Amino acid sequence: MSGTSNTLLIKHAAEIVTNTGETAKQGADMNRLLRIADGALLIKDGRIEWIGETAALPAVDHRDLEILDAAGCSVIPGFVDSHTHFVFGGYRPEEFFWRLAGTPYLEILERGGGILNTVQQTRAAEYAELVQNAAKRLDAMLSMGVTTVEGKSGYGLDLATELRQLHVMGTLDQEHAMDVVPTFMGAHAVPPEFSGRTDDYVDYMIKTVLPAVANQKIAEFCDVFCEKGIFSLQQTRKILQAAQALGLRPKLHADEIVGFGGAELAAELGAVSADHLLQASDRGISAMAAHSVVATVLPLTAFCLREEYARARIMIDSGAAVALATDYNPGSCFSHSIPMLIALATIQMKLSPAEILTALTLNGAAAVRRADRTGTLECGKQADIVILKYPSHLFLSYHAGMDIVRTVIKKGRVVVDKS
Amino acid sequence: MSGTSNTLLIKHAAEIVTNTGETAKQGADMNRLLRIADGALLIKDGRIEWIGETAALPAVDHRDLEILDAAGCSVIPGFVDSHTHFVFGGYRPEEFFWRLAGTPYLEILERGGGILNTVQQTRAAEYAELVQNAAKRLDAMLSMGVTTVEGKSGYGLDLATELRQLHVMGTLDQEHAMDVVPTFMGAHAVPPEFSGRTDDYVDYMIKTVLPAVANQKIAEFCDVFCEKGIFSLQQTRKILQAAQALGLRPKLHADEIVGFGGAELAAELGAVSADHLLQASDRGISAMAAHSVVATVLPLTAFCLREEYARARIMIDSGAAVALATDYNPGSCFSHSIPMLIALATIQMKLSPAEILTALTLNGAAAVRRADRTGTLECGKQADIVILKYPSHLFLSYHAGMDIVRTVIKKGRVVVDKS
Ligand SMILES: [Zn+2]
Ligand SMILES: [Zn+2]
Repeated sequence: MSGTSNTLLIKHAAEIVTNTGETAKQGADMNRLLRIADGALLIKDGRIEWIGETAALPAVDHRDLEILDAAGCSVIPGFVDSHTHFVFGGYRPEEFFWRLAGTPYLEILERGGGILNTVQQTRAAEYAELVQNAAKRLDAMLSMGVTTVEGKSGYGLDLATELRQLHVMGTLDQEHAMDVVPTFMGAHAVPPEFSGRTDDYVDYMIKTVLPAVANQKIAEFCDVFCEKGIFSLQQTRKILQAAQALGLRPKLHADEIVGFGGAELAAELGAVSADHLLQASDRGISAMAAHSVVATVLPLTAFCLREEYARARIMIDSGAAVALATDYNPGSCFSHSIPMLIALATIQMKLSPAEILTALTLNGAAAVRRADRTGTLECGKQADIVILKYPSHLFLSYHAGMDIVRTVIKKGRVVVDKS
Repeated sequence: MSGTSNTLLIKHAAEIVTNTGETAKQGADMNRLLRIADGALLIKDGRIEWIGETAALPAVDHRDLEILDAAGCSVIPGFVDSHTHFVFGGYRPEEFFWRLAGTPYLEILERGGGILNTVQQTRAAEYAELVQNAAKRLDAMLSMGVTTVEGKSGYGLDLATELRQLHVMGTLDQEHAMDVVPTFMGAHAVPPEFSGRTDDYVDYMIKTVLPAVANQKIAEFCDVFCEKGIFSLQQTRKILQAAQALGLRPKLHADEIVGFGGAELAAELGAVSADHLLQASDRGISAMAAHSVVATVLPLTAFCLREEYARARIMIDSGAAVALATDYNPGSCFSHSIPMLIALATIQMKLSPAEILTALTLNGAAAVRRADRTGTLECGKQADIVILKYPSHLFLSYHAGMDIVRTVIKKGRVVVDKS
């Protein structure tokens, strides 16, 4: 591992492949990649200074120059995992098997399973313990090529623990190589102390927790689990409008289990993204495309829950910008496997390699409003870069389920080296 | 990395989990695991000398003793990948996408795709190049916890190249930490020089290639791609009987695309295993169970080809010993991802964690006739051991698609350390 030099030159890459611009809004754009054979990339002070064919490389000052030969390898932008719940206490392995065995949800709750189990364990966890465990998870994500990750609160459901989760993310954003984007998601579930009083809990969020989060400037987004029996369209609108008034931008868990207009609401509110979308209607998909709401699909969750996959193919063909993310969490989807995510997107969702690359880089960055600085390989952007072990990015799909990351570079620094 | 000492003590494992015996023939056995909490394992000269609770550990001579603290970790037998084609030249990424796009098989062949593309590239490959590439693949398998791998010839389809593939496996078995089990599979396809003359090719295999393979003692098994339009039941029987007469034990690629009695033939011939089995009949499944033919299912291939999965649940319930393997090859299944294999077995095939562990260890070992020396953690067996990063083997399924291997021990030596 290196990274002391402030100028890094990658050369002789079999290919450099990237989308360009700030969001691939059209299906056509998601398939339009820039591809440079025998490519080179010059990085200075953490930013991309030059990109092109190795033969066309300008004269470079060789003092402090670190050279990385990428012969036989392809070079792509670092992945952006734009939907995770990576700060949590405890695990729930038993529940995973109960669910697979067909145990009804209510019985799982009676046995002490479900999200409130994680809430209990997260409330009980020390700050340092949360930081330490989350840091290990970030290490594992980084080693799979993820250079920016979004994380959600929502395992506190009370003032102190929601703030603690967000502070953990702030600390890790500072101390870890990973860029961590914090989302406040107090409206993830209704805690036991508000059981049967969802409206009261919504008021508590709006009057007590949201203002504290906004005041401390520890979250950029506000997300709500908008779902039948959880938070209604009206409750979701109320929370997200209050959040917007305080400067937090809206996101939605929408139309996962029952389609009841989550995608349409996301468009109405000008949400940055709507996520899950397994049951999103045609109208909702069109509305998202028209209002530039990133459609974030989470195939690992659908896989783990044995659900139908979101209609990503139709979303792209309808002109929506589709992002792929893991939904990593200890309940419904205890996985942040980028290789398996790509395999599912390829085989089950029938996305092309170009669409998958765009969905995991540029559109992921757009889903966390970072597309001005990461998600593509362009001059002036952060040098968030992945070098793959094979000469073509096609191997991401072809080498099904295999981690083919060789080197990860974050802001110009080599942070993972598996060569 | 260590491994110089000849006595290794693993202690304080959160659990040690293993099947026992020499084949889990009954479904009930596949679910019957021995589980030791706070377990310890003493290894001497590459073999397991003692296994039990850490508190019950006998007095140990501490000279030359290497101690491995496995607190918070679970300890399982090394995986046996009992069906792969890991020695090959070249890759076929384009064809993977043609197939997903629905290009008919005949058109793929016209464009130069299909198995004969790999045959051409393998025939053209130098011996050293084959060894070098295959060794890298074994490294990657070992790092996922595989300690014994079966490999098939069948990308030569001529005397010289079939022998070369088998010699590569022999060399790697000697030089690499992995135990490599060689299978002769000349009847993998019909080469261009015998096009339209399958019976002549079968004669060539039986009269020329098989005797040379047997004479050089470079293969333990003989496998045939018994499938409609490839090798018929009659041709398969003829080849495998000739192989048996020369001391090679039979295996079959059976009932993958069209069910036409491959499983039944495997039972008739007393084959060690029949593999794929997507279309195996109820009668075939019962016959395999009755004749102790290991039923090897390959979910990664079904996944990559968007096929229905083999009916592993019914096979186990019918009393067959089911093994899980990757089918790693550059065409239909370019993946040796044990984590994704386990995820598919859990979610799609609905196997229990105990069944999956048994299928990947004891029954995999039985499928390559190595169950007398590996596949379980028992006194006297080879110390082929995997230490997982989590306190329960349940995390293999629960942490879906994630590689949770911390340490791999082969014949008592630490060969992978990711702690
Ligand atoms: Zn979520
Ligand atoms: Zn095969």
